Amino acid sequence: MQDRILLAHGSGGKLSHDLIEKLFLPNFDNPILARLDDSALIELETGARLAFTTDSYVVSPLFFPGGDIGKLATCGTINDLVMSGAKPLYMSASFIIEEGFPVADLKRILLSMRKVVEESGVKIVAGDTKVVGEGAADGIFVNTTGVGLIPEGVHISGANAQPGDMIMVSGTLGDHGIAIMSQREGLEFASSLESDCAPLQGLVARMLEASPEIHCLRDPTRGGLATTLNEMAAQSQASFLIEEEKIPVRDEVQGICELLGLDPLYLANEGKLVAVVPPYAADRVLEAMRGHPYGKASVVIGQVLSDHPGRVIMKTTLGAHRLVEMAVGEILPRIC
Amino acid sequence: MQDRILLAHGSGGKLSHDLIEKLFLPNFDNPILARLDDSALIELETGARLAFTTDSYVVSPLFFPGGDIGKLATCGTINDLVMSGAKPLYMSASFIIEEGFPVADLKRILLSMRKVVEESGVKIVAGDTKVVGEGAADGIFVNTTGVGLIPEGVHISGANAQPGDMIMVSGTLGDHGIAIMSQREGLEFASSLESDCAPLQGLVARMLEASPEIHCLRDPTRGGLATTLNEMAAQSQASFLIEEEKIPVRDEVQGICELLGLDPLYLANEGKLVAVVPPYAADRVLEAMRGHPYGKASVVIGQVLSDHPGRVIMKTTLGAHRLVEMAVGEILPRIC
Repeated sequence: MQDRILLAHGSGGKLSHDLIEKLFLPNFDNPILARLDDSALIELETGARLAFTTDSYVVSPLFFPGGDIGKLATCGTINDLVMSGAKPLYMSASFIIEEGFPVADLKRILLSMRKVVEESGVKIVAGDTKVVGEGAADGIFVNTTGVGLIPEGVHISGANAQPGDMIMVSGTLGDHGIAIMSQREGLEFASSLESDCAPLQGLVARMLEASPEIHCLRDPTRGGLATTLNEMAAQSQASFLIEEEKIPVRDEVQGICELLGLDPLYLANEGKLVAVVPPYAADRVLEAMRGHPYGKASVVIGQVLSDHPGRVIMKTTLGAHRLVEMAVGEILPRIC
Repeated sequence: MQDRILLAHGSGGKLSHDLIEKLFLPNFDNPILARLDDSALIELETGARLAFTTDSYVVSPLFFPGGDIGKLATCGTINDLVMSGAKPLYMSASFIIEEGFPVADLKRILLSMRKVVEESGVKIVAGDTKVVGEGAADGIFVNTTGVGLIPEGVHISGANAQPGDMIMVSGTLGDHGIAIMSQREGLEFASSLESDCAPLQGLVARMLEASPEIHCLRDPTRGGLATTLNEMAAQSQASFLIEEEKIPVRDEVQGICELLGLDPLYLANEGKLVAVVPPYAADRVLEAMRGHPYGKASVVIGQVLSDHPGRVIMKTTLGAHRLVEMAVGEILPRIC
């Protein structure tokens, strides 16, 4: 382990996982944390099953095409709850603000948060504000922590993938990552690109209506699709085979990726999900996804196999097979 | 309202309350948030009553006599749960770390957190780590968000004070504020002073055993006793009369306060509570408090009256009565 924290420790990829495995789990070991799903699953004595999840948001710039830190912070935590099959109910919001931050910007951020929670039926019931001196933070950081209720009969975990399951994504990949990067780097030609940032409770509710037997759900945020699939392959001890030509990427995103040497598989998404669904339910779930505004471009991208447990393999457009690894370095710091 | 965020917006005092009333409540208005207690009270369909609370910690320095940011972040959130009468159960921990932060310091912080959660029987079940570039944060910021279960028959709120109730504190005031300030300013002569930072679930459990009819509990953190009493007086629409000579303050704290022109009533505490208890239960509760290691120096400091609703009045050592107002400016930024 390094002596100093690196940007890549916050990438969501390999070094983030190292930090969790070498520092966090040894100190806070308990079966709930050790599941390493997007949300913790808490079973109360009263029988209720709660989903519980936290994220701090440090995105830069604070305002970007398609959203801002407030929209991101509310969508992100709602989506983490939803990825456990929970109905998101309550949220806390905690702000660390740099002295001198414009109140008008704070108002814009709060209004974005309000729109998302109103759309999702979530209530912000607890909050906190800290202010630090000029130069001790970069504008504003937002933490949101959410609580949801998991309906009976729903059992979703990254550990539940079974050989034969179909792997689906709910739309184009990399939009958030490229929107942030374009804004940051002042890439004018990319000005039409927007972040996909969106709350996914409605989409998932429809998928669960179509089939409560969905095995895994996860939103490919930091670290992108490649990291998300690797996490689930490791948790499930199965192999994930995906086909490059089926992975939906916008032409503009593909173009910028080629220009800058980026791989859309590793770019962050904030309004997309990966679903792993048993084959007999796949058509119904896919149809339900396509019927929802946030899932119109849903497609099957591959299948779960048993031959290389813990591995993600991609059949390239040329017909070759290559190993898809978890993100190692940090491509785009402060993407969320 | 100002155009820019000031340090005092994070003080816990008057400007913090302005921010809540003018920006947060209008956007996120709901009856749970509007109660403005230390924890939100969530009633699930299954009948369970959950307490839910969040805080971000930005204390400087990160390590101080009697604790560090990790101990503070776990104790603080446990205490906010406990102040609603809840048994603290689960916690999330989210870190914003500056690139280059020593891993050895992170280890020390995690170990402190571990000690507190082990002492309190709380499980850290969800986490997140973000890393920002050098200069974009000051070392490390920690958010903790907690969930607890409120036992049947317990109804504690800052709004429940009744005329005739006795007002108690669980020990000396201002220790945390002066410990931080001494460390920050390099006041060598204060080197024996330690923060009172402690998790109070054991103390409160004993108090509730003695009498479940405690009306209000609150920990006088940012803004100190003066701000806490003002909050409860406003929520309860009662007046709080306290007696200066009964307020316990260590000699060293009093001395530094006189030297630096500070008032111990406004200094932060991180291991103390204020209890408002009906007169018939006061003796039992006080005895229970004194029987616990964190409440040995508990005393009655005053009584709730009905004559000046929303006001806090202090009978001074000279026998005069003066109004005690909520903290207005920021005395000690980044105290927690």
